[in-house]
Amino acid sequence: MESGKKAVVLLSGGIDSTTCLALAVDELGTKNVLALNMLYGQKHDRELESAKAVAEHYGVPYYEMDMSVVMQYSDCPLLKHSGRSIKHESYGDQLKERGGSGIVDTYVPFRNGLFLSAAASFAMSTGASYVLYGAHADDAAGNAYPDCSVEFADAMRRAVIAGTGGHVTLEAPLVMKNKAEVVRLGLGLGAPYELTWSCYEGGAEPCGECGTCIDRARAFAASGVEDPALKGVAK
Amino acid sequence: MESGKKAVVLLSGGIDSTTCLALAVDELGTKNVLALNMLYGQKHDRELESAKAVAEHYGVPYYEMDMSVVMQYSDCPLLKHSGRSIKHESYGDQLKERGGSGIVDTYVPFRNGLFLSAAASFAMSTGASYVLYGAHADDAAGNAYPDCSVEFADAMRRAVIAGTGGHVTLEAPLVMKNKAEVVRLGLGLGAPYELTWSCYEGGAEPCGECGTCIDRARAFAASGVEDPALKGVAK
Repeated sequence: MESGKKAVVLLSGGIDSTTCLALAVDELGTKNVLALNMLYGQKHDRELESAKAVAEHYGVPYYEMDMSVVMQYSDCPLLKHSGRSIKHESYGDQLKERGGSGIVDTYVPFRNGLFLSAAASFAMSTGASYVLYGAHADDAAGNAYPDCSVEFADAMRRAVIAGTGGHVTLEAPLVMKNKAEVVRLGLGLGAPYELTWSCYEGGAEPCGECGTCIDRARAFAASGVEDPALKGVAK
Repeated sequence: MESGKKAVVLLSGGIDSTTCLALAVDELGTKNVLALNMLYGQKHDRELESAKAVAEHYGVPYYEMDMSVVMQYSDCPLLKHSGRSIKHESYGDQLKERGGSGIVDTYVPFRNGLFLSAAASFAMSTGASYVLYGAHADDAAGNAYPDCSVEFADAMRRAVIAGTGGHVTLEAPLVMKNKAEVVRLGLGLGAPYELTWSCYEGGAEPCGECGTCIDRARAFAASGVEDPALKGVAK
């Protein structure tokens, strides 16, 4: 990213987007970074508190946009209005059930396309040149989340560049890294992981059993570091 | 489009989207078509009444989604909250002022990207395979509206196909036609142009002087047909 230019970071309050924010602040400085959180009717409102706390930690302006009107027709179990329960198993096991590949239950219809489009519009309105988001290699595995694939990311970047007349571009700095590598990068940058939230459930503490809890635990284990958010829970 | 499959048509109540709906109904039948209108905080609410009337004319379900939260940071003069006035001159004259090319005042930041993403999500939730929208060749001229360019349309289509795991695709059936050709096509299909609304202003009658009023008048003149919406006004 070019020094002096502004970036919008999509910040959900999880590990990946927090690492993205850490990178953006490291590269552009606090004054040139805006954090944008997208609501979509998700069960885990707890994540919003984390996103606010992370933005506050870095002293960057924090914005929220509610896109739940778009998702009201979806029956994805991540959504509050859905009566469906979230599977307590790893992504790997879910993919095995699908013969190795296929969209998982927790895919929210074209969510990333919607969020990136809204962020590109917001960036253009606020004079920012970049939209950063935390898609990483694990998300795309087996096309579990097709809106995290490299094909999607590349096409979406072209669409944003063309559709904003070259004013805005997308950056997915983690797209070639797996989650363990993301954690290592963030630890090196001093990312405040103790403030983050990953669990899909809306509980007071992480369930430890949903796909994203398992994914997070494995990433910290691979890095040989205790998850600082779980330290808090143990208290 | 494949017979028996469902389509979502982005319907704003203007000439282009009404022609798109006419095409979709002609090809897939009333039962396989949904009309979706996107609100974004625009001044011309009058258009919404037109969209509803057109959907009712065809007997297709009509949905609205309000995206104005995204546009609240833009100062585009099309927006209600903007204090800026809309220029009363043709797109051609606006482009001349920009030395032949450049984004016009009435470009709303990445609006089409946002609308198409929301429509793709809606399509996936409702089991539709296609999203149709009425971008046409005049819109893209001189990059006045970069989110109507062929580059944008192509990249966005790829993003939607990849990001929905192949469940949804975009169709821009008018993208190679100018507005006069769109009108001729629609007249042939019996599109109810008397119900449509194009003017950017929120008045009771079209102003006749804004870019889109001029564009519309020229398209009807080129087709040698009187604008049926203006007949109504004359009464």
